[in-house]
Amino acid sequence: MSSVTGNKIKLSVFGESHGEAIGCVIDGLPAGIRLDTDKIYLDMARRAPGKDKTATPRLEKDIPHILSGVVNNVTTGAPLAMIIENTNTKSGDYENIMKVPRPSHSDYPAYVKYGGFNDVRGGGHFSGRLTAPIVFAGAVAKQILTEKGITIGAHIKKIGAVSDAEFDMNDVSAELLNTLNKSSFSVISAEAEEKMRAEIEKYRADNNSVGGEIECAVTGLSAGLGGNMFDTVEGRLSQLLFAIPAVKGVQFGKGFGFAESNAKAVNDEYEIKDGRVALKSNNNGGVLGGLTSGAPLIVGVAVKPTPSIAAEQNSVNLETMENTKLTVSGRHDPCIVPRAVPVVEAAVALGILDIIL
Amino acid sequence: MSSVTGNKIKLSVFGESHGEAIGCVIDGLPAGIRLDTDKIYLDMARRAPGKDKTATPRLEKDIPHILSGVVNNVTTGAPLAMIIENTNTKSGDYENIMKVPRPSHSDYPAYVKYGGFNDVRGGGHFSGRLTAPIVFAGAVAKQILTEKGITIGAHIKKIGAVSDAEFDMNDVSAELLNTLNKSSFSVISAEAEEKMRAEIEKYRADNNSVGGEIECAVTGLSAGLGGNMFDTVEGRLSQLLFAIPAVKGVQFGKGFGFAESNAKAVNDEYEIKDGRVALKSNNNGGVLGGLTSGAPLIVGVAVKPTPSIAAEQNSVNLETMENTKLTVSGRHDPCIVPRAVPVVEAAVALGILDIIL
Amino acid sequence: MSSVTGNKIKLSVFGESHGEAIGCVIDGLPAGIRLDTDKIYLDMARRAPGKDKTATPRLEKDIPHILSGVVNNVTTGAPLAMIIENTNTKSGDYENIMKVPRPSHSDYPAYVKYGGFNDVRGGGHFSGRLTAPIVFAGAVAKQILTEKGITIGAHIKKIGAVSDAEFDMNDVSAELLNTLNKSSFSVISAEAEEKMRAEIEKYRADNNSVGGEIECAVTGLSAGLGGNMFDTVEGRLSQLLFAIPAVKGVQFGKGFGFAESNAKAVNDEYEIKDGRVALKSNNNGGVLGGLTSGAPLIVGVAVKPTPSIAAEQNSVNLETMENTKLTVSGRHDPCIVPRAVPVVEAAVALGILDIIL
Amino acid sequence: MSSVTGNKIKLSVFGESHGEAIGCVIDGLPAGIRLDTDKIYLDMARRAPGKDKTATPRLEKDIPHILSGVVNNVTTGAPLAMIIENTNTKSGDYENIMKVPRPSHSDYPAYVKYGGFNDVRGGGHFSGRLTAPIVFAGAVAKQILTEKGITIGAHIKKIGAVSDAEFDMNDVSAELLNTLNKSSFSVISAEAEEKMRAEIEKYRADNNSVGGEIECAVTGLSAGLGGNMFDTVEGRLSQLLFAIPAVKGVQFGKGFGFAESNAKAVNDEYEIKDGRVALKSNNNGGVLGGLTSGAPLIVGVAVKPTPSIAAEQNSVNLETMENTKLTVSGRHDPCIVPRAVPVVEAAVALGILDIIL
Repeated sequence: MSSVTGNKIKLSVFGESHGEAIGCVIDGLPAGIRLDTDKIYLDMARRAPGKDKTATPRLEKDIPHILSGVVNNVTTGAPLAMIIENTNTKSGDYENIMKVPRPSHSDYPAYVKYGGFNDVRGGGHFSGRLTAPIVFAGAVAKQILTEKGITIGAHIKKIGAVSDAEFDMNDVSAELLNTLNKSSFSVISAEAEEKMRAEIEKYRADNNSVGGEIECAVTGLSAGLGGNMFDTVEGRLSQLLFAIPAVKGVQFGKGFGFAESNAKAVNDEYEIKDGRVALKSNNNGGVLGGLTSGAPLIVGVAVKPTPSIAAEQNSVNLETMENTKLTVSGRHDPCIVPRAVPVVEAAVALGILDIIL
Repeated sequence: MSSVTGNKIKLSVFGESHGEAIGCVIDGLPAGIRLDTDKIYLDMARRAPGKDKTATPRLEKDIPHILSGVVNNVTTGAPLAMIIENTNTKSGDYENIMKVPRPSHSDYPAYVKYGGFNDVRGGGHFSGRLTAPIVFAGAVAKQILTEKGITIGAHIKKIGAVSDAEFDMNDVSAELLNTLNKSSFSVISAEAEEKMRAEIEKYRADNNSVGGEIECAVTGLSAGLGGNMFDTVEGRLSQLLFAIPAVKGVQFGKGFGFAESNAKAVNDEYEIKDGRVALKSNNNGGVLGGLTSGAPLIVGVAVKPTPSIAAEQNSVNLETMENTKLTVSGRHDPCIVPRAVPVVEAAVALGILDIIL
Repeated sequence: MSSVTGNKIKLSVFGESHGEAIGCVIDGLPAGIRLDTDKIYLDMARRAPGKDKTATPRLEKDIPHILSGVVNNVTTGAPLAMIIENTNTKSGDYENIMKVPRPSHSDYPAYVKYGGFNDVRGGGHFSGRLTAPIVFAGAVAKQILTEKGITIGAHIKKIGAVSDAEFDMNDVSAELLNTLNKSSFSVISAEAEEKMRAEIEKYRADNNSVGGEIECAVTGLSAGLGGNMFDTVEGRLSQLLFAIPAVKGVQFGKGFGFAESNAKAVNDEYEIKDGRVALKSNNNGGVLGGLTSGAPLIVGVAVKPTPSIAAEQNSVNLETMENTKLTVSGRHDPCIVPRAVPVVEAAVALGILDIIL
Repeated sequence: MSSVTGNKIKLSVFGESHGEAIGCVIDGLPAGIRLDTDKIYLDMARRAPGKDKTATPRLEKDIPHILSGVVNNVTTGAPLAMIIENTNTKSGDYENIMKVPRPSHSDYPAYVKYGGFNDVRGGGHFSGRLTAPIVFAGAVAKQILTEKGITIGAHIKKIGAVSDAEFDMNDVSAELLNTLNKSSFSVISAEAEEKMRAEIEKYRADNNSVGGEIECAVTGLSAGLGGNMFDTVEGRLSQLLFAIPAVKGVQFGKGFGFAESNAKAVNDEYEIKDGRVALKSNNNGGVLGGLTSGAPLIVGVAVKPTPSIAAEQNSVNLETMENTKLTVSGRHDPCIVPRAVPVVEAAVALGILDIIL
């Protein structure tokens, strides 16, 4: 078990879905960083559940409360601890889960690993709710990166059968990213949003859920950042991205599209542009040999359909060791992808900050 | 820079393509493990270059020489150091690379990162040759895993437009894996091999190269292994897999296929089978909530086309800062995928061993 | 900066002396451990300030509040987060410290390191108050160790010119340790306590403070525990012990006494005793070659006199860069040694737990 | 087990006393550092055994052979691997040790830890011979530090009853350190050397050995370096220093002398000197709150008498579980302290380099 990560910035995340509070400790932040609380709240609102997520940021709950490491909104250099109190944690619905694991959730492996002592209410420490502290930490990281001219933004690349417009991999603008990273439904094409919402509604109406893809870009990175071999930009970011529940794949640039391609078609040649070395294409997504190439960093993740659905499913009773049926009650997201966008941005921001410090 | 990885087993890899020797130190191996040298040589032969890789293991070069940590073929518990002497390292061909970076290689970012001091001959420390020590370490790890009933094997899932037969994700047999992990062209379907060889030849004849996919499976893992959040099985393995040059994507189970799917179709339900908890499907590739589910672990990687091709490419001269043309001479693999199979197995073996110790 | 430590048990400590709260996150605790709150409170009371520390545990303040990782007093395996709210934090007294660093405190180096952004009130994150979370975490660790038959206890070896009776290094009893680790003034000899209290009073009356030594023992450790070279029992424990403010030296067994000794006098010979391998003496303090020898572990630390004294001292004004005088107001410990005893036990407990898990 | 250390500079040490070779891998060295081979050889000669160690550096054996990471004597930024071949490794003398552990050596705990599989010949991986790679790595580190104006040197503070002159803690000169770090018997006072040699001879003649103390100083460190709490300068250096066999205590500045002192006597007050903040005394040995204070860093270590002596000792036979007598044959150092001086310098250099990078 380790909910701790990072080399220079060490992030320790704690909490359980229905416990008293969730939160995190960020160790190693530079001193003297002025935090923009509004920006932090905005990212947290993008991740927070709600009926209409395109509305103005409403943050009635999920208010991050900073306990240490900040004086007068400026970081002191000491560990920044933050908690979010859990409210409205009726756990009655989850009694049954103790015995009957929900398909495609962590319930069963966690039961085995922790000998049944894990807090299973709402998924416990494995809950998607635990991405809130990650978004908080990522929002702090983004502010430091912004000061260094680095911009991070992600869009919903695909939901089910509906795709968004594509990034121009070699010419992503910070402006576009700054639009995406403020939106609660981050897409490049306005049309895509409508179709995606319809796609989600289709599955919701059927007590089902749908998966998707998120693509994140980073501009402003100079060439030669990152370590090599076991410390590549790709390895570091993927370790963070797989910390997000439901993420099942990570690719850089053309990623799995490389499998069917050939070098003549996808090699990224060089040219001198404005007196500087530039790439003529960016199929490698800004990473070569594990190091940044100077082109925008492009990373994509695959998100599986929310496993919690209202339809009846087959499972087993771990006490009686008999087959049984399970219906997961409660309100569940028919598609987690839109809310996962700021989480992906946060994971990338934390990784990039740790790399460049 | 860090060519060191692992928590309990720390692997430190060193060497440059045209330096005196490459090798590794494996720290933290259990004492008392009897090493089967033949099996180690077999894996290294699978990775080694050669005209006909289906022939019996010939290992005229790339002989691993163990310096410490082993007495009478049994591990002592002290760090195991191994070197492979570099022979036949004519570097004349690479003089030009100092100034003109090869497209899609590490040359340019490494030049920036190391201020031109990096050893660029043959790619230096970034060379695919550095996967030889990884294969060695993985072969050692495999032997420890075998004693614990864990079997690892991978196959070429795709080369260009040609696909192999598929793993039965929920019922991969150790027997199949043991066939794959001894082959020098690891495919499930014999027909696929022929077609893949033809596909490769097509690109080779055109001074081009082609990409592909490798899929690796692990059987014998009990449920509940791995850590959570930043220490998931997925995060750990991906960090190791991205250490392999040319790997640009990593996915588990259905991976990017999840994007277009829905929960009803892909949720992995449970059933009691032979008195034990079993999964009815394994779309999650043996990992749920970052922990092993008890089903076979299935991980896939995307491999880009070898960037070194004999065709002329555009690049720049880093000294004169002018555009120029580059032709990479020397014999280069038109497809690195077959040789990368044992490297993928090795990375997975190292990750799994570190997780279960 | 890193207030995070540990391999298997990762402890992240946060907070500032006069901030809103201090606390810690303990990541990696085994699931299913029943916590004895009374024992935790007892250790925290031993560390807490107070007029008469031999009185029954009074814990009006410094109440640890567990936020996660524990359900019904049993650990869940998820990170255990704990906070202690800071109350009564009048900071008026410390305004001056921003500009005039207190001699022998962290003030000046921290000012340089954090560019003046560090929270200097009460010493901020460098305050001795931050040992409260360490004591909490150590108390949790002790409970796990107790179940494994491992006992930890420390005594005040020396305060100024007054020494306690000595441990019989090769025959420390768990009973003695269990008496010491419940006391608020831990000494072997009752007479020593009286003399030490008089010694402290002598310095207090003079607006001065006095240093001392603490010696900690661990029984119940089997032979062969620990790692080697950079992962010795000695190295691990010393890294934790130097985290305690005022600790300036760490020694094992005879420690600095070895300098004047010879092998014939201090070599620890072996004998068969009750059918098992035993040491005839334990000058090495239970550690040989960095590994436990099976004899009791004995570690001693040197504690410097509390630097905060009421007497006037020379310092400088960091703004005007002029010499000035400083009188540290507020109530300060004339001797920190008695309160540091449970902190030393906690640091050792955390180190040992991380080693044996 | 972990013979790997460091955050930014990762050092992996391997080898066994009577194996084929010992060596190390240094990962994370900056590129572009020109190595002065003579200086490296000098340090290795200071550590190497020999009749008259004051003679000119003779390095017939123990020649470090660099395998990677260096081209034309300049670091490439890739891992630097180095091996020293073991020659003259007659192991006949050690047959008996397999069964009869030498008192105060690692033999018995290592036997338990590694189940008898460890290479016991000459102490195996626990041998003092393994300090040769540490000295090598430290010599490389020293060269990088020298370029940054940082100087490291140590002296024999005490051997048995004989003490050297003392460092002026607050005014150590780089000149003195540069004399000490070139000497094969590093003392401040020439008279001390004579007396110390006589002291050693006294014990040698009696088939005995004697302990001592080494004190190391570092000049040129600015204030505010190091991390806090678990990452203090003291914690980092002590972890490295305890990696040296025979080191049983580590103290900073006045160290254990603080126990009998009071704040008025030992607090290090500030003054403005030459327009800068300076300390009026340096009892804290250059570290306050875990951070460098700007004064010279002063660290002392206690070294126990070499446990291998020619006199007969009591031990046990681990096979028959009976008491027995043991006489350790072979030539052994009657005092390891002079040879340990460059090892202490190396450990400190590695720690400081890791801290400042």
